Amino acid sequence: MSTTVSPLAPKHVPELPAIAGVRLATAQAGIRYANRTDVLLALFDEGTTAAGVFTRSKCPSAPVEWCRAQLKSGKSAKNLPRALVVNSGNANAFTGKSGRAATRLTAEIAAKAAHCKPGQVFLASTGVIGVPLPDARIRAALPAARARLSAGGLDAASHAILTTDVGPKVAAAAFRAGGRRGRVVGFAKGAGMIHPDMATMLAFLMTDAEIPPPFLKAALRRAADETFNAISVDGDTSTNDTVLLLASGASGAPRIGGAADAGDFKSALLSVCRELAWRIVRDGEGATRVMEVLVRGAANERDARLAAHAVATSPLVKTALHGGDPNWGRILAAVGRSGARISPARAHLAAGPLCLVEGGLPVSYRERDAARIFARERVPITIDLGVGAARARVLTSDLGHDYVSLNADYRS
Amino acid sequence: MSTTVSPLAPKHVPELPAIAGVRLATAQAGIRYANRTDVLLALFDEGTTAAGVFTRSKCPSAPVEWCRAQLKSGKSAKNLPRALVVNSGNANAFTGKSGRAATRLTAEIAAKAAHCKPGQVFLASTGVIGVPLPDARIRAALPAARARLSAGGLDAASHAILTTDVGPKVAAAAFRAGGRRGRVVGFAKGAGMIHPDMATMLAFLMTDAEIPPPFLKAALRRAADETFNAISVDGDTSTNDTVLLLASGASGAPRIGGAADAGDFKSALLSVCRELAWRIVRDGEGATRVMEVLVRGAANERDARLAAHAVATSPLVKTALHGGDPNWGRILAAVGRSGARISPARAHLAAGPLCLVEGGLPVSYRERDAARIFARERVPITIDLGVGAARARVLTSDLGHDYVSLNADYRS
Repeated sequence: MSTTVSPLAPKHVPELPAIAGVRLATAQAGIRYANRTDVLLALFDEGTTAAGVFTRSKCPSAPVEWCRAQLKSGKSAKNLPRALVVNSGNANAFTGKSGRAATRLTAEIAAKAAHCKPGQVFLASTGVIGVPLPDARIRAALPAARARLSAGGLDAASHAILTTDVGPKVAAAAFRAGGRRGRVVGFAKGAGMIHPDMATMLAFLMTDAEIPPPFLKAALRRAADETFNAISVDGDTSTNDTVLLLASGASGAPRIGGAADAGDFKSALLSVCRELAWRIVRDGEGATRVMEVLVRGAANERDARLAAHAVATSPLVKTALHGGDPNWGRILAAVGRSGARISPARAHLAAGPLCLVEGGLPVSYRERDAARIFARERVPITIDLGVGAARARVLTSDLGHDYVSLNADYRS
Repeated sequence: MSTTVSPLAPKHVPELPAIAGVRLATAQAGIRYANRTDVLLALFDEGTTAAGVFTRSKCPSAPVEWCRAQLKSGKSAKNLPRALVVNSGNANAFTGKSGRAATRLTAEIAAKAAHCKPGQVFLASTGVIGVPLPDARIRAALPAARARLSAGGLDAASHAILTTDVGPKVAAAAFRAGGRRGRVVGFAKGAGMIHPDMATMLAFLMTDAEIPPPFLKAALRRAADETFNAISVDGDTSTNDTVLLLASGASGAPRIGGAADAGDFKSALLSVCRELAWRIVRDGEGATRVMEVLVRGAANERDARLAAHAVATSPLVKTALHGGDPNWGRILAAVGRSGARISPARAHLAAGPLCLVEGGLPVSYRERDAARIFARERVPITIDLGVGAARARVLTSDLGHDYVSLNADYRS
């Protein structure tokens, strides 16, 4: 009952390689805080394709609505993405008509800078909600940013999208296709939740490969489901969650379109998403350790996810994790109430290599061996439901005093 | 946008009136702790009917499985309930075959004491899970308890079922039917969760009315859905949750069977359940205040419940409640991700009489007015989804440092 070991978050932040066909710049627009970058402008070469996954919230932010609309209509070449504008400090959510107008105006100005149509501009926002977006400040900052665009702007970009994150979250991977080398890079901001109103997860993924939109969409959906949709800091989903994948197809890069040449690209994409997802959970405010919940033996994938999410969002499991308490009873109780089919007589539970429950009953193990595993930064838990062959993996952080302190404080 | 005011938990515990046809006794069996009562024996007169609602966990405890089986087969008179045995200190969950055997043996001994069949005995357990039930101790305690049975044993009973509760939770109400007076009493233990393994909600309701099982079942289901199934201390459901309603039909009491004479009984049952549910939330370990979430304007009841539960289980909402922070953004974000249909342009949110959001947008209000409402022991929140006419109400407690301290500690 061993589990795959995830990489621990390295202490240093790796420098991201440039992606041919992508240029970036940041600006200080003073949206909420002074003396920090809060606007990112990215321009993409002609022929870039895009895919996105967004929050399932029924109250999505104006920029999420905007991106969805562009991706729906973006079937023809003249609708391909040419620019991306991200702002931190204000989520442009619960802002009604004026929020939608702010989005449209910003897209129009960015379109001028990129010599494209507004529908070719993607937008994302993160920050306080229910406050009108000071979009005039964003628009005013764009021309100067336009003049500073550079292919090496990824590291600055990874800072400009942060709100209350501990630090930037970046990842990169290479792949081979058709005898040529391609790259995937990504940067994200986390659902740190230290601020009441800054609960957004944003991730931007870029590759120099040439990839048709349908394939890109499928690859992103699959990777996001296994990573960004399989993490839980506190079970809350924001109005603004956005993951965008852009493929520039810049000259010399491989073309990905069929099953034959796709495997290595998919692996690279998955590894970048997995690294970013890990960092979002590990850097969750107040988090001291991460539980990697692997549910297997489920009747189907839905059941596997239900069970894994029930464990990952249980306050009882998360407080026990904080206390380093190998409390398998709380874990199985969460599985039991999840709605997933379980065969108690065939159920197993292990912490790392140590089996705690076999055939639905606690086995004889040394409490201090279990406690040692729960004291680590990464706590791998494997739960076998004893029913079928489906599996799911979810990462979750612990729930401790820092989380309460940071979230119970009055909004500043 | 006003809400019904729930009664605040009175400082004193009211004495429960006796229910004709019901006799109770408690015992110290030493199941987990010395010097406290931990077994309850109740005997019911012939003709008593029963209904139950239980945990939806796929891993229910052995006594939950037992009760379900008896209620299913309990259509004929010879299967009517005659005895109830409750123990605290051990949940008899995740105990496999030996747990089921312990349940059966206990029912057999109780049946001898009650001169009935084992299938006429109901059982409930609460306490540590995954540890074999010391059922021999329970059985040994029953004969002496049998000798001490009394109609006035309800108050002692309300203590014997507790684990780590702050105190007993009792409620009583009277009703009239057919020109005669009847009573409903109830006592409960809460999902206090201060101990990792003691997360059970038990409630026992008793009335002297004569009520046929189908009607009893429907009335209990309805009352439980509005009360016990509409509270959240931490979103976790235990393996043992049990609510039993027993109707003794003792002589002189009214017979309830049709719509004409049922209204007053239903109200009394609901008020007892509501009072017990309130006390369970208010006495949740670490809780300092209770939010009463009323969702209305929903497309249907399912949507109303989805939205109310999303708010009630959101760690962000619960930590803000702890901090007395009128953070409507977190509340609406939880509603948004709940899956319930919402019309943002018609959505409202109010704290007590104070409107905070109107037509999906924040209105101008004084922050200190909102803060004053959030500083109270009871915080009434009304959310109108602006879609239909369905509504749901859920009570939830705050999430503070005491909750983390109590739940992150190593199991003692």
